[in-house]
Amino acid sequence: MDSGAVGPAHDIKVTTSDLRGQVGRIQNQVKEIQEVVRMYSSTTGPRRVRRQKMDAMSSEVVDTNPYSRLMALKSMGVVSNYERVRDFSVAIVGIGGVGVGVCEMLTRCGIGKVLIYDYDTIELANMNKMFYRPEQAGWNKTMAARHYCSELCPDTIFEVHNMDITHDENRPKLKDTVAHGGVDRKSPVNLILGCVDNLAARQVMEAVSEELQVPFMDAVVADDAMSGHIQLIIPGRTGGLEAAPIKQQMDKRPGVCAASLPTTDSILAGLMAQNVLKYLLGFGEVAFLLSYNAVTNDFQSRMTYPDPRKQPPPAGGDHY
Amino acid sequence: MDSGAVGPAHDIKVTTSDLRGQVGRIQNQVKEIQEVVRMYSSTTGPRRVRRQKMDAMSSEVVDTNPYSRLMALKSMGVVSNYERVRDFSVAIVGIGGVGVGVCEMLTRCGIGKVLIYDYDTIELANMNKMFYRPEQAGWNKTMAARHYCSELCPDTIFEVHNMDITHDENRPKLKDTVAHGGVDRKSPVNLILGCVDNLAARQVMEAVSEELQVPFMDAVVADDAMSGHIQLIIPGRTGGLEAAPIKQQMDKRPGVCAASLPTTDSILAGLMAQNVLKYLLGFGEVAFLLSYNAVTNDFQSRMTYPDPRKQPPPAGGDHY
Repeated sequence: MDSGAVGPAHDIKVTTSDLRGQVGRIQNQVKEIQEVVRMYSSTTGPRRVRRQKMDAMSSEVVDTNPYSRLMALKSMGVVSNYERVRDFSVAIVGIGGVGVGVCEMLTRCGIGKVLIYDYDTIELANMNKMFYRPEQAGWNKTMAARHYCSELCPDTIFEVHNMDITHDENRPKLKDTVAHGGVDRKSPVNLILGCVDNLAARQVMEAVSEELQVPFMDAVVADDAMSGHIQLIIPGRTGGLEAAPIKQQMDKRPGVCAASLPTTDSILAGLMAQNVLKYLLGFGEVAFLLSYNAVTNDFQSRMTYPDPRKQPPPAGGDHY
Repeated sequence: MDSGAVGPAHDIKVTTSDLRGQVGRIQNQVKEIQEVVRMYSSTTGPRRVRRQKMDAMSSEVVDTNPYSRLMALKSMGVVSNYERVRDFSVAIVGIGGVGVGVCEMLTRCGIGKVLIYDYDTIELANMNKMFYRPEQAGWNKTMAARHYCSELCPDTIFEVHNMDITHDENRPKLKDTVAHGGVDRKSPVNLILGCVDNLAARQVMEAVSEELQVPFMDAVVADDAMSGHIQLIIPGRTGGLEAAPIKQQMDKRPGVCAASLPTTDSILAGLMAQNVLKYLLGFGEVAFLLSYNAVTNDFQSRMTYPDPRKQPPPAGGDHY
């Protein structure tokens, strides 16, 4: 060793380089923490970057335009009037595994208005379903869906109703909000979307659809998560729930639950939201009854017809 | 200037004041972080509850069990060994509209390990795709996907690689990480999942799949968002990309973009993730080539066969 490597000068040198090293490490730590905090504060709590409202849907291809990929459907000749999506309103009943997917997709597509009906709270047991996150445990599903979706697209209007539509006392509220659920708050919603797990609720929606003459699209997944279907019911013009392949679903009782997979749910949600866009924007063939079998990869599509034993809708007169 | 501004004493003075300055700036940064954290913790928002790791997948039906709905697949006779999902690892290349859905679904299904490859950043223009949120604009897709997915299921291991696999210099890293991407870090991943928008990247994955004899599942969506397919390529046993209905996709150039819909993306992502579960867990019929036409609601499923003009895989010997 060099004999000069002693004394105050040397001590200072060692101390300094030691300090520099420490400061460097602290700086890296702070940088890491800052990044985590930035991510944290953007999911909950105070938000720095918010997507601003946009008066019109632009088709400009720039990174900052949330509509460029959707408006490209126009330039590619798929949908002639994509921007009209803002004129439409849908009522989503049930935001479990399927409903939440439908809600997120239509929101990201820039639909005008979404009414949400559910009465459930988020639990860790729902984490095999899309969208909801562990930190939302205990929240109302309606509240969480509105909160998170309205940030995805501030141009979409949300209206939530935290209630069970199968309770008799809630029927008038359901009918009234659907009847005035249009973007203009005067006309009814354009579609009632059923994403529930019980026949009673589906029958309530079918009845309201008939009373208000508003089309009803129903999505159902079997209890074993291995099949499902979507069905479009247009009062007086198509068959009703009597044509549905899946009718009864498992009753809720303690200690037992239906199986569910985010895969089957997402496929059904995708098929439903796709059918909604096609129906509202008038492109492609609208599906009336589209069934999915997850075991065989089989998809069946067919028309349904009005039940001749049922009385015609009010518009058809009273003669029968 | 002071004539004393030379020599070791001066050096020490400068260094010390430099260090003091740096420490001061760090103190300010820490103070800022503390403020953000305080704001965050005072919001009514949740985030207090983090989902804890779970040693084993329980089938107990309680609200706090994130696996109850998945383990119900066992009690319902659909999947005999659902808990084995933790033994498997997949490499997802491309986490755009389809990949991010596949990643979220498999995470929520509790898969053992996910390797993610992408080099893109999140932009507002991606908001018509699922999962990503406006406040993540500017973030690496890989980082955001890992951060948000690891909170959905802390039992899943994530490994991200922020790189373009089509660059020659990244090929060895891709091959090496796939070859050692198994849950045990020794064996290869169980599947390579392609969720990209260009043939070059799909060809790179097919080549790596052949070299390592690891199956490759490819998901593709057409530029007009009106069709797509998933294909399972098992080296030597099925056809390869020559059998794919969609080959060429739009080149990236300024001012023009492909159309995309969260609906079509989610249907394809759902079909892919479903096929992954079926292949890994051995239930139902695995799809080899499953095509979706969004205009007609038509789904076609078929087998593909090895190209007789290609040489057999190494395992089959050199005789041809």
